Amino acid sequence: MSHASGRHFLQIPGPTNVPDQVLRAMDMPTIDHRGPDFQALGQRLFGKIGKVFGTTNPVVIYPASGTGAWEAALTNTLSPGDTVLMYETGHFATLWKKLAEKLGLKPEFIAGDWRHGADAAAIGERLASDSGHEIKAVCVVHNETSTGCVSPIKAVRDAINAANHPALLLVDTISSLGSIDYRHDEWGVDVTVAGSQKGLMLPPGLSFNAVSNKALEASKSARLPNAYWGWGEMLEANSKGFFPYTPATNILYGLDTALDLLYEEGMENVFARHDRHAAATRAAVEAWGLEVLCAEPAHYSSSLTAVLMPERKGADEFRKSVLANFDMSLGAGLSKLSDQIFRIGHLGDFNDLMLMGTLSGVEMGLKTAGVKHRAGGARAAMEVLTADRTAGSISKAA
Amino acid sequence: MSHASGRHFLQIPGPTNVPDQVLRAMDMPTIDHRGPDFQALGQRLFGKIGKVFGTTNPVVIYPASGTGAWEAALTNTLSPGDTVLMYETGHFATLWKKLAEKLGLKPEFIAGDWRHGADAAAIGERLASDSGHEIKAVCVVHNETSTGCVSPIKAVRDAINAANHPALLLVDTISSLGSIDYRHDEWGVDVTVAGSQKGLMLPPGLSFNAVSNKALEASKSARLPNAYWGWGEMLEANSKGFFPYTPATNILYGLDTALDLLYEEGMENVFARHDRHAAATRAAVEAWGLEVLCAEPAHYSSSLTAVLMPERKGADEFRKSVLANFDMSLGAGLSKLSDQIFRIGHLGDFNDLMLMGTLSGVEMGLKTAGVKHRAGGARAAMEVLTADRTAGSISKAA
Amino acid sequence: MSHASGRHFLQIPGPTNVPDQVLRAMDMPTIDHRGPDFQALGQRLFGKIGKVFGTTNPVVIYPASGTGAWEAALTNTLSPGDTVLMYETGHFATLWKKLAEKLGLKPEFIAGDWRHGADAAAIGERLASDSGHEIKAVCVVHNETSTGCVSPIKAVRDAINAANHPALLLVDTISSLGSIDYRHDEWGVDVTVAGSQKGLMLPPGLSFNAVSNKALEASKSARLPNAYWGWGEMLEANSKGFFPYTPATNILYGLDTALDLLYEEGMENVFARHDRHAAATRAAVEAWGLEVLCAEPAHYSSSLTAVLMPERKGADEFRKSVLANFDMSLGAGLSKLSDQIFRIGHLGDFNDLMLMGTLSGVEMGLKTAGVKHRAGGARAAMEVLTADRTAGSISKAA
Amino acid sequence: MSHASGRHFLQIPGPTNVPDQVLRAMDMPTIDHRGPDFQALGQRLFGKIGKVFGTTNPVVIYPASGTGAWEAALTNTLSPGDTVLMYETGHFATLWKKLAEKLGLKPEFIAGDWRHGADAAAIGERLASDSGHEIKAVCVVHNETSTGCVSPIKAVRDAINAANHPALLLVDTISSLGSIDYRHDEWGVDVTVAGSQKGLMLPPGLSFNAVSNKALEASKSARLPNAYWGWGEMLEANSKGFFPYTPATNILYGLDTALDLLYEEGMENVFARHDRHAAATRAAVEAWGLEVLCAEPAHYSSSLTAVLMPERKGADEFRKSVLANFDMSLGAGLSKLSDQIFRIGHLGDFNDLMLMGTLSGVEMGLKTAGVKHRAGGARAAMEVLTADRTAGSISKAA
Repeated sequence: MSHASGRHFLQIPGPTNVPDQVLRAMDMPTIDHRGPDFQALGQRLFGKIGKVFGTTNPVVIYPASGTGAWEAALTNTLSPGDTVLMYETGHFATLWKKLAEKLGLKPEFIAGDWRHGADAAAIGERLASDSGHEIKAVCVVHNETSTGCVSPIKAVRDAINAANHPALLLVDTISSLGSIDYRHDEWGVDVTVAGSQKGLMLPPGLSFNAVSNKALEASKSARLPNAYWGWGEMLEANSKGFFPYTPATNILYGLDTALDLLYEEGMENVFARHDRHAAATRAAVEAWGLEVLCAEPAHYSSSLTAVLMPERKGADEFRKSVLANFDMSLGAGLSKLSDQIFRIGHLGDFNDLMLMGTLSGVEMGLKTAGVKHRAGGARAAMEVLTADRTAGSISKAA
Repeated sequence: MSHASGRHFLQIPGPTNVPDQVLRAMDMPTIDHRGPDFQALGQRLFGKIGKVFGTTNPVVIYPASGTGAWEAALTNTLSPGDTVLMYETGHFATLWKKLAEKLGLKPEFIAGDWRHGADAAAIGERLASDSGHEIKAVCVVHNETSTGCVSPIKAVRDAINAANHPALLLVDTISSLGSIDYRHDEWGVDVTVAGSQKGLMLPPGLSFNAVSNKALEASKSARLPNAYWGWGEMLEANSKGFFPYTPATNILYGLDTALDLLYEEGMENVFARHDRHAAATRAAVEAWGLEVLCAEPAHYSSSLTAVLMPERKGADEFRKSVLANFDMSLGAGLSKLSDQIFRIGHLGDFNDLMLMGTLSGVEMGLKTAGVKHRAGGARAAMEVLTADRTAGSISKAA
Repeated sequence: MSHASGRHFLQIPGPTNVPDQVLRAMDMPTIDHRGPDFQALGQRLFGKIGKVFGTTNPVVIYPASGTGAWEAALTNTLSPGDTVLMYETGHFATLWKKLAEKLGLKPEFIAGDWRHGADAAAIGERLASDSGHEIKAVCVVHNETSTGCVSPIKAVRDAINAANHPALLLVDTISSLGSIDYRHDEWGVDVTVAGSQKGLMLPPGLSFNAVSNKALEASKSARLPNAYWGWGEMLEANSKGFFPYTPATNILYGLDTALDLLYEEGMENVFARHDRHAAATRAAVEAWGLEVLCAEPAHYSSSLTAVLMPERKGADEFRKSVLANFDMSLGAGLSKLSDQIFRIGHLGDFNDLMLMGTLSGVEMGLKTAGVKHRAGGARAAMEVLTADRTAGSISKAA
Repeated sequence: MSHASGRHFLQIPGPTNVPDQVLRAMDMPTIDHRGPDFQALGQRLFGKIGKVFGTTNPVVIYPASGTGAWEAALTNTLSPGDTVLMYETGHFATLWKKLAEKLGLKPEFIAGDWRHGADAAAIGERLASDSGHEIKAVCVVHNETSTGCVSPIKAVRDAINAANHPALLLVDTISSLGSIDYRHDEWGVDVTVAGSQKGLMLPPGLSFNAVSNKALEASKSARLPNAYWGWGEMLEANSKGFFPYTPATNILYGLDTALDLLYEEGMENVFARHDRHAAATRAAVEAWGLEVLCAEPAHYSSSLTAVLMPERKGADEFRKSVLANFDMSLGAGLSKLSDQIFRIGHLGDFNDLMLMGTLSGVEMGLKTAGVKHRAGGARAAMEVLTADRTAGSISKAA
């Protein structure tokens, strides 16, 4: 790779900045995946990974990216032709729907405007009308990475329950897990889909299914063809600390370390940190006179903020200019938001001064690229970041 | 991980020893998988990866282990209920067959004794009798990792051609690619399946499909459900240097470096090195008075050697003792060979003195564990290794 | 080490942030320092290191810190009781003087106020009065790390020449080399002292003497006892690519890479980048209503900026608060400046957004710690940083 | 660096193979050497480093190679013109003597034949005759790296005491510390000189002085000029966990980890491991019909074995051939032993199979290079290595 002076600012909403400790943990010799040292690693991982999902149930770890974990969630629980209710929160919800179609499912899509999280009431209504229980699963993206809107998962589960509907609840937490409060067990989620490269602070290459008992039960009768993604052999091998096929050993080393870092910081502190950085970012956006894409404050994402361009165009030129001038990668608008927005990732291994470098880069980029805005965004963010700091406070306890 | 003094000898037939340069290449910050630096990496990789497969056709790279690439080869080319002809070379051929069954295919298995490679004549006969062309694909494992026997792929292709049969030829090269001579294009293979963690000298986490035009054509009408593994979106994105979903970026850094190392050494030299180490290993086995599992010299593997225990039992105790006493991991006998054999991996990033450490460890382990044998195996290996050395020769060009 | 989320901001004026490529280059197996691979490394290093010093003469590389290179410069060129003329630019000039005393030299110290670089005229006057040529060497610190003032080395040399004085000119460039324009040969310096951990972007552990022919000549009659630091055996061994005793091999790997990074960027660009960041930093200081310690604009340092506390006290509490709240290390005031100033390092592997994170951290720290100031410093810095940027410009060529 | 396949065998008697954990520990960002994180590191190091020296007294750590620590030992304790009694054990003892001369001391050299350790009786006799106590220090190399002979330090101390002589005892343990049993306090050593790159399993770049109270007392009146090496400022700063000048921070990270590895293995086990590998190596040499340079079994080194060429010539051609053919670095004969011997390092991070790779490489090299010898050395070594192994034993407890 070429080298510009200084560290690149990777401020897309994932992959995120990987801590040095995690990269170094991965930079160790690969070991025998059938030997005792691996077994100890496996048992350690399976013992501690549930905490970040908020579950005491099994978490399946795939050598795959998040897309694979979507496929795993569907193929383990459903049968050809099953109807699944999905919610159009944005680009990734749409991709998941397309994937369901490819697998031979019949997704029903509740339309959304890509500026809100899922509407639990709308889901409840649809389920209430499904007296024949044709709908086998409800699929929702917790944090829609393409828009920066969070869906209220607990409310969705409550709506399902209120409708007395047996549908499974499958949730994509790819860009929220380890960044935004999430509770697999408490919220009654059946399958939680996640990936390594966002809040878990790892390179891409691992993805996850946290699985409820109800989902496990459903997997026994599910008939979608399924081999690589099959939970059965996975869980059997996992119970002894092993995998049924060669796992991505070195990324597992990194996972071991990354979970330790998160738990050392404390999940409550991790969530509070993300909330605080998101608030500071929105203060900057407001001060610039720009608009946050997410139209519902209750749905604001704490892991990324999508920002509308003043005239809903020119975002790609702006991002290109920021990359060329300030060596920072920002997220693009995807599909129907293409060129209309840019996305600022503020998740993962991150802190106040990295955020200020990021927001200063956006502010300088807006000026340099000639985008209409008011100066003062970075300064407004500093107001937020200093509001809870005192001379003697400790940033780690943020 | 705990630390015994000195370097562990990882002599299973993969994952193999990863060169420091490769681990260090992976130990770099993850980058934006949609940005120009990634694009340059992607284009570089797609430009050079074909050489190790012996193809000028596309090679699809998955963030997955080899099992996933098996699934990809089948789901991209076949339809539910299709008959596939598979050859029982050993444990991994059997696993591939089971995977085919799970996916809804009808594998027909030509029985083997786990001591030979595939019999091309038997395949030819079966195809000749398939006048209705029910068989859609022939699946063969090039180097059966569980037995150390190599199947004659060119002969299989010749047999298919001689039978005038349109079946696709799918070949698993997981433990041969980058170690044993292999020629995707020249031998008329339609899909070559491979993984990162053996001859490619990478940690596990990537797998591959090299794809012929005929296979691409077949993929247009194949009806097995298929999303994550789909070649179509992959090849479209790959054509610009990108991936349709987040790739395993850091392992790709490693792949970039690993290919450079292989090509710098020269594929002919790489193959000759593996042949030479395998010959030295067999000389040791013979001197110990033990038996190589592979019963056909023409099928001897150059990447691993499986060795029969004197009384076809006690291999696991032996391996355990070697691990405890000499900090070396050897491969176990799998399924029906369980406890009967041990496997010595001599592939990947390896050299003469590592081999001598390995064989000395086996010899000392046989003595320590009380396994009946004659001493002198390591010495016999040295005879082989010195036969082509002269005072002025250079090991690199070996 | 404990881990706060995100990357620590190491903004002391050295050690500086080490690029990943350099750390990774160091993270390779140590090799035989008497073998051919080492020889190739040594010859490559000796062939290219002169450029960063602006010399075609030899550069001696010590496994030592900068203090050792001070000692080397003196013990190779001087004899017990020799008078050396030194200039009190600040703390480090004072330490060098004390070191000279310990070695048995008689340093004569031209007093300074720690707010200016050396006064070439004063040096010239003193030399002019030294008709007996008692003064054997003039020692000047190029960039005084404790104050952020640069001494005009060329003017000093001109003054020595104008006085027709034979004194050697010894210059400490520990915190300027690779950051601020410097020309060993062109400016007539006899010994340039440098260290690895600042502009060279390496960890501490190497230090340097660039040596003129006149200095080499002087070394033949110098009588200070001298062994480890002796140029003679060094240069003899270096001429073949080797060292007379075991060198710090792994840091040399890093040096090899670090020089490549600097030369790839281009030394002119490197200097311009440091100038620009220093200008932005001073704009921030001015906007805060604070005072830069360096009282002479012509002497402003481009590698660090020392800032006076409003009432010349409380700097240590301020720095402590910044570390606790914003995970940033700033430089302390040393000896007589203790607690009166803080120092901002903006040298080495650095870029605009890292600088903005840094200055935002200072601004938030001033507020949090209750230091009297005006807001707006970070914003003023952005004005400077955007002044020369346009939508299409490339930061690397900045 | 170029890459031959597989791992290079670095079997010189230092620098030794650095464990991955140590290299990875060094591969972390440099921190503020005046901040609290560094202080914690410093205090941890000073708290635990004494154990490997067998001392509860201070150990001074220099950013320098071992040669610097020789200079430090002398300049801190002696005055110009002092007589020191040194013992000619080999090349390094001779270099230390030359260094003493350069510093203005008067070394008196007891001649040796380079095939034995120091003769304590001869030292005792010389001291007994020094009624005026002109001799201020006795300097002995514990493990002479050029010959593979160990000097009996306790016997030397007993001889000094028997002579009622006040001379200090200075001991070079550069190639024995952390490999061969050594007890600074118990044996009454005044200054122990050591380096990082041998038994401590680090890259070169750190060196050490362990210092007795008597040596500290002597340092108050010592008059050799001394600055960089001065114990006074070091110990004062060390008492708070800091250093008086910039330390080699990243190598200190490695030291922190390396000491943990040694202590985890247990020093008794570390010494036993080295003894065992040395015994196996000598068995190989004997079986080859070659001669170990060290002529006195009681003085055999456990960290290296020097081997005489059959006709006392051709060693360099042999080593060159081994490097070219088998990618292994062996140690050369130095000065008067040039070309007559080769040296096999078996110290540091090492195990049985690495030793067998090494000895096999020597055996194959002897054959390839046409050096007269008998085969069977590697096999003889295996006899030694299996003698204490049983099926259930654990190598870590060696």
